[in-house]
Amino acid sequence: MVNSLHDPDLRGFASDNYAGVHPEVLAALTSANGGHQISYGGDAYTARLAEVLGEQFGQQVQVFPVFNGTGANVVGLKSMLPHWGSVICAESAHINTDEAGAPERVAGIKLLTVPSVDGKLRPDDLDRYPREPDDVHHPLPGVVSITQSTELGTVYTAEELRALTDRAHALGLTVHLDGSRLANAAASLDLPLRALTTDAGVDVLSLGGTKNGLIFGELVLAINPDAVTGLGYLQKLNMQLASKMRFVSAQFLALLEDDLWQRSAAHANAMARRLRTGLEERVSSGAITGISFSQPTDANTILATLPAGVADRLRQKFAFYDWDPAAGEVRWVCSFDTTTEDVDGFIAAVESELR
Amino acid sequence: MVNSLHDPDLRGFASDNYAGVHPEVLAALTSANGGHQISYGGDAYTARLAEVLGEQFGQQVQVFPVFNGTGANVVGLKSMLPHWGSVICAESAHINTDEAGAPERVAGIKLLTVPSVDGKLRPDDLDRYPREPDDVHHPLPGVVSITQSTELGTVYTAEELRALTDRAHALGLTVHLDGSRLANAAASLDLPLRALTTDAGVDVLSLGGTKNGLIFGELVLAINPDAVTGLGYLQKLNMQLASKMRFVSAQFLALLEDDLWQRSAAHANAMARRLRTGLEERVSSGAITGISFSQPTDANTILATLPAGVADRLRQKFAFYDWDPAAGEVRWVCSFDTTTEDVDGFIAAVESELR
Amino acid sequence: MVNSLHDPDLRGFASDNYAGVHPEVLAALTSANGGHQISYGGDAYTARLAEVLGEQFGQQVQVFPVFNGTGANVVGLKSMLPHWGSVICAESAHINTDEAGAPERVAGIKLLTVPSVDGKLRPDDLDRYPREPDDVHHPLPGVVSITQSTELGTVYTAEELRALTDRAHALGLTVHLDGSRLANAAASLDLPLRALTTDAGVDVLSLGGTKNGLIFGELVLAINPDAVTGLGYLQKLNMQLASKMRFVSAQFLALLEDDLWQRSAAHANAMARRLRTGLEERVSSGAITGISFSQPTDANTILATLPAGVADRLRQKFAFYDWDPAAGEVRWVCSFDTTTEDVDGFIAAVESELR
Amino acid sequence: MVNSLHDPDLRGFASDNYAGVHPEVLAALTSANGGHQISYGGDAYTARLAEVLGEQFGQQVQVFPVFNGTGANVVGLKSMLPHWGSVICAESAHINTDEAGAPERVAGIKLLTVPSVDGKLRPDDLDRYPREPDDVHHPLPGVVSITQSTELGTVYTAEELRALTDRAHALGLTVHLDGSRLANAAASLDLPLRALTTDAGVDVLSLGGTKNGLIFGELVLAINPDAVTGLGYLQKLNMQLASKMRFVSAQFLALLEDDLWQRSAAHANAMARRLRTGLEERVSSGAITGISFSQPTDANTILATLPAGVADRLRQKFAFYDWDPAAGEVRWVCSFDTTTEDVDGFIAAVESELR
Repeated sequence: MVNSLHDPDLRGFASDNYAGVHPEVLAALTSANGGHQISYGGDAYTARLAEVLGEQFGQQVQVFPVFNGTGANVVGLKSMLPHWGSVICAESAHINTDEAGAPERVAGIKLLTVPSVDGKLRPDDLDRYPREPDDVHHPLPGVVSITQSTELGTVYTAEELRALTDRAHALGLTVHLDGSRLANAAASLDLPLRALTTDAGVDVLSLGGTKNGLIFGELVLAINPDAVTGLGYLQKLNMQLASKMRFVSAQFLALLEDDLWQRSAAHANAMARRLRTGLEERVSSGAITGISFSQPTDANTILATLPAGVADRLRQKFAFYDWDPAAGEVRWVCSFDTTTEDVDGFIAAVESELR
Repeated sequence: MVNSLHDPDLRGFASDNYAGVHPEVLAALTSANGGHQISYGGDAYTARLAEVLGEQFGQQVQVFPVFNGTGANVVGLKSMLPHWGSVICAESAHINTDEAGAPERVAGIKLLTVPSVDGKLRPDDLDRYPREPDDVHHPLPGVVSITQSTELGTVYTAEELRALTDRAHALGLTVHLDGSRLANAAASLDLPLRALTTDAGVDVLSLGGTKNGLIFGELVLAINPDAVTGLGYLQKLNMQLASKMRFVSAQFLALLEDDLWQRSAAHANAMARRLRTGLEERVSSGAITGISFSQPTDANTILATLPAGVADRLRQKFAFYDWDPAAGEVRWVCSFDTTTEDVDGFIAAVESELR
Repeated sequence: MVNSLHDPDLRGFASDNYAGVHPEVLAALTSANGGHQISYGGDAYTARLAEVLGEQFGQQVQVFPVFNGTGANVVGLKSMLPHWGSVICAESAHINTDEAGAPERVAGIKLLTVPSVDGKLRPDDLDRYPREPDDVHHPLPGVVSITQSTELGTVYTAEELRALTDRAHALGLTVHLDGSRLANAAASLDLPLRALTTDAGVDVLSLGGTKNGLIFGELVLAINPDAVTGLGYLQKLNMQLASKMRFVSAQFLALLEDDLWQRSAAHANAMARRLRTGLEERVSSGAITGISFSQPTDANTILATLPAGVADRLRQKFAFYDWDPAAGEVRWVCSFDTTTEDVDGFIAAVESELR
Repeated sequence: MVNSLHDPDLRGFASDNYAGVHPEVLAALTSANGGHQISYGGDAYTARLAEVLGEQFGQQVQVFPVFNGTGANVVGLKSMLPHWGSVICAESAHINTDEAGAPERVAGIKLLTVPSVDGKLRPDDLDRYPREPDDVHHPLPGVVSITQSTELGTVYTAEELRALTDRAHALGLTVHLDGSRLANAAASLDLPLRALTTDAGVDVLSLGGTKNGLIFGELVLAINPDAVTGLGYLQKLNMQLASKMRFVSAQFLALLEDDLWQRSAAHANAMARRLRTGLEERVSSGAITGISFSQPTDANTILATLPAGVADRLRQKFAFYDWDPAAGEVRWVCSFDTTTEDVDGFIAAVESELR
């Protein structure tokens, strides 16, 4: 019998993966337990998941459940590229800054980075790396990878996505979307997942689950099966093929079959909005000074700049990370389990520092 | 709400990863849920797991929880090797035959294979690939990787392991043990895990959990920290670092903190023994003919050879795999949830085919 | 002015790459020198080489000059395989034993080895690794790689090759031929290069030059362009694209445009035959005892077994390598510059040891 | 007999690797020919080269002759890095823009790029990628790679190099220098090679030969042997180990044993200076208009911006490449065999376009 070793009432703003598991997800594990099921994806839950995703993303979609986001990104990108292809992405992209070089190291993928103030790519950014198939010296771009919502908490509109994917396709590039927080973007825009993916011209999607209340689990979705090759092999050889896959798929069924994905993401977004609005009102009223916000808060992530010393004092009670220590910039993330009390308590703590 | 989509009373003999999750493991997930915990291993459950493993394997041990067995093997082996090192293993080793070439493809590791009738390596097998550090042409062996229990269901004794690790160390090689079924081996010999690892001279261990009742999860254990380098980086860049690691660690606490690992493995072994003994007795008594056994059944895996057509007919009710189709050889695996009724029913079915 | 630092009259039997450069090849470098020529293959010599190879191997052939044999093998094999493909080869293949694991390490290619007494593969050997495209666990074979002449000095007949390539193609495999000593095989059979490659069903060829009198240089020939993809990129990114390529191509023009390749290889073969026959006659006549030959001498390589101590004493005057030290087996290789005096002197030395 | 297929009197300004081989280098090949020499570096010429380099770079230096510049860079960088290390370099670095992603693809190395107007890195640029050994998410920098002379034709002074290497070492980074045109930089500053490498704190050097009059050949020099590991293995497995190495080493003896490296590089620099000065004088006198120079011409490369259409008309007689087509920027490179007549003829052609 494993005892609880932590305080189940303590929450902070460090990351949506500091949060635990949504009770409906935990219940799904129990539903899927018992008896024997074919391993490696031959089970009833994975079959049902494929149906559900077909309904939501289009019947052509192919689904590959994997363990984590880096795994989803590496498997997806590799399936889209020949041995010599490269990936255009923002400098701030997770694949560039936070995956320890996994794309380069395990998959031999070169990233071609573009500076971006708000974490988004624009169509003209693709001109930075022209596709010249007769030139064997320059790394040939093959894929554009974007993040939605971005690492900076911003969200592409459906129109922005479409403009980008149209340009990419016109240039002979395919489009990968790192959607570890796609649910937050869709909830923010009040759109179904399909509107920001299939309908926006995305070819391959890394669909996040962990940051939205799963124990673990992401999906590689080949929305455009013509854009990929060998995903099944790549899933296996990149160590992303779960033997007891029924338990990954059952979690995603809990998330996607009804609207849990939307409820959880919308709640996290609302908490972030409450936090930002609460602080901005206090700035407007003159109650506090010294804080500024570096980016729009389109989803569940807030970037704020604080006077020296404040962050460390706040962290004595609330966990969160520095984003750009030199600039005094910090990051606050809300999750499915953030409460209004958490937010209001944090606002009060900031206020007592900055009044 | 996710409905159960399968029959929780249907079990077969295909694999221990067709089985689900042990109830005590599922309960541990609930214990570890709620509140926020530092992601990527900074949580209370991973800290406690390190303590438990220190007690069981020695205080020097370092632990890295990962997603699956291929991940554990690749991360562990890579940490033991320079850019140019190779691994001696049996031809039948899982890393050679069942990981889609992951060691070669994502980690650039060359495998130097040795034929083995029973899946075990012997000390003299290491002479096949002499270590000649001045020769840059031949792939330089750096590690010996063995499996316990083996893919063929056999088990190394502690003495056999010690003879092999002594020879390996004398040759300047370190020793990796693929222990996806180490629990079955230890239960078979009625020994603690330590007797077959730390005390037998193993340097790095892939300790399996999935096949012994977890949802997912394996451990890379650096038993000899001098034999490894950079395991933390390698875990991350090989896409094996779970963000919500508390849920991997809590499962292993359920397995290891009391004797669940032993109970489950001993039960699976006992069911395999019951199955084999039951059939052998019928052969001896002349009740059935045409079946033979290719390997000792030291753990929970049985290899048997059947007359043509019998396997396919049996499979109409019981799932199991061919092992060597050309030879008519099949594999039967028992797991923590195999019941005596399952076994006796299967014996009866075989009997009705072979009488 | 660089002085000669060695004895230009001293030759041994260690390897055909101990030999220097054929004078006609050296002259070709001078012919190609002077003025500016487009780098990386846009020069007149590479264009002419493509014409010559088109005449000799078929107009469809595509040619990629590279630096060395390992480079040719890695570039060629990689171009034939998807991200997850594997290569069936003999255990004794150079790519398996003498390339420091380059295929695995830089190209992520898994080798599936087959034991072979004489270094040749047979059609039935391909059954050892069935091609099961729905199985993502076993490494999927995609290419068969064979060596001609083999590392053991044996030669496939055109019929043997055809039987093998037919079976391979029937199984959905393509065929790579490591031809670092293809000239010796062709000279041995008195056939044009085409008879053992294009006409025998070979898809991709590594055509050797270095061991047949070049300074350096090998060719990757896509005999079947449908079997490859991206060779130009792969040549570059595998560090096998010579900037001053005119000098690689000019050497091959010297070798291939008239019959230098044939003259040099036939001479090396004849010297090996003279050596073997000379010794065998002395064995038959009873003049010497204790020597035996492990393989046919089809080309320019001889494997012989000597009594203990003899090899080391012979090496005081003639360089050569052990092949299997435990068995007392040594290897003798003749090259384009081996003389009858070299051979007769060596026979005499062996005779004085074994009489 | 290979006929000359090109005009040996035609030269342009496209690249120093459009040039042929210096006659003294060709002569060295003849001196090294004849007889048998131990392959793979066991020959007398490689031994002598090690002595010469010991005299010039310090007795501790270790030398590994390779085929080309990409090979030298990949082998050198890989030897300096653990499995998880990254390389800080300028965005314009050859390893980033012109090697088809070889560092990422064959060596799994992540490049961390820094924008640079003139192709040089400054000490503060290293702060962009802080070295945080406890953070397994961000790619950990391990090496700084700089180019001398740079891709833009600029040259670091010895003081600039020292400031950079001091900072790098203080940060725990080692320093790689891509010296494919190091000779031009040294000749430009009238310094020995040592002053810009060993004495400036460089740990590992890719020393170019091809662009300074060799047929092919570069050297990996471990100036600080403590900064590298396994160079011999890495040379082999990266397909950069020449079997007939005596011919690589003999070329470098021709270059380095007396002052040929200096004479050739100084001549190329002088021709570039003559070209630039000639054009600048005509600009000053008002004889021509419309041309400007984007970078200092410290070595043998000139970057110039021309009015639309001019470059294409000039290219009808003189080969050269666009550098930044959108900006109308072109690149002119002089080499060891560029003549004053070539330069003056080109100046006249430019003048007739821009007058």
